[in-house]
Amino acid sequence: MKYSVVIFPSSKVQEFANQYRKRYDSTYALIPPFIRLKEAFELDDAKLPELVEHLQQVAEHTDSFTAKFHRFSTFHPTNNVIYLGIQNKEAFEELHHQVIECCSSRPETYAFVPHLTIGRDFADDELKDVYGQLTMAKVDLETEIDRFHLIYQLEDGIWSVYQSFQLRK
Amino acid sequence: MKYSVVIFPSSKVQEFANQYRKRYDSTYALIPPFIRLKEAFELDDAKLPELVEHLQQVAEHTDSFTAKFHRFSTFHPTNNVIYLGIQNKEAFEELHHQVIECCSSRPETYAFVPHLTIGRDFADDELKDVYGQLTMAKVDLETEIDRFHLIYQLEDGIWSVYQSFQLRK
Repeated sequence: MKYSVVIFPSSKVQEFANQYRKRYDSTYALIPPFIRLKEAFELDDAKLPELVEHLQQVAEHTDSFTAKFHRFSTFHPTNNVIYLGIQNKEAFEELHHQVIECCSSRPETYAFVPHLTIGRDFADDELKDVYGQLTMAKVDLETEIDRFHLIYQLEDGIWSVYQSFQLRK
Repeated sequence: MKYSVVIFPSSKVQEFANQYRKRYDSTYALIPPFIRLKEAFELDDAKLPELVEHLQQVAEHTDSFTAKFHRFSTFHPTNNVIYLGIQNKEAFEELHHQVIECCSSRPETYAFVPHLTIGRDFADDELKDVYGQLTMAKVDLETEIDRFHLIYQLEDGIWSVYQSFQLRK
């Protein structure tokens, strides 16, 4: 089964992001808006208890924090993705490093940049157009991060939540 | 915000159900296959901690159990819904009664019948056709129920998981 570890931001941020995702993100109907902590990975179900135990430990030793989305950004030319950028990256980086310490020997494909994707698979011209428009918009959103989720993918591509993990208050 | 309390069955059952939901259920892209424990209800976010505390208590005092799906069934003529019926209803009924004891004075609209909807909003003729075909199929699925989820609905109708609650092993 394919798993991933993600953060779902507050409903306010999810609704803001979905205005764009509905139009620009092909995964709109497969998963709510998310910030990925660990890239998707195959895991034998027998190893699931070990992963859950690890994530519980991580959550118990991490304080909840506030995330600030301050602008639209893009991974172009590496990836024609547009995302909501996060101003205070450190707390996410710390959480990412702890989360990935378990259950997968495969290194992450990309250097970790905390972000919330709102569009993907743009043609170069389209990316330039849309990104040009979006960078004019003011972004100033905050969301309390007090939990993360272990999710798994069904055959049809839809992601389902297996378990949530609360951070320390 | 609108909340609900549901069980997501194992991925095997979800994939079985989604074969039908993809075709017959307009909520296919809004939520993975689920068994509802409490009808959707409005809750002031200030009351959320009380609900979460209640659900934690319920989970801590309930043993996990096995659910057996044994046939397709329908709520026609009350509702033109087709669902996967559950053979051992008692454990779900018990959990339902405990879950609804909090945070909403409004009684449930329908008597509780544990089920997993695979199609809805059929015209009478279509229901008869589809249901007729489905009742010929053999259903014999088991799923371990060891958690339930508190979910909330975004503006665009998509449901997102707020928190999972593990039952006693």
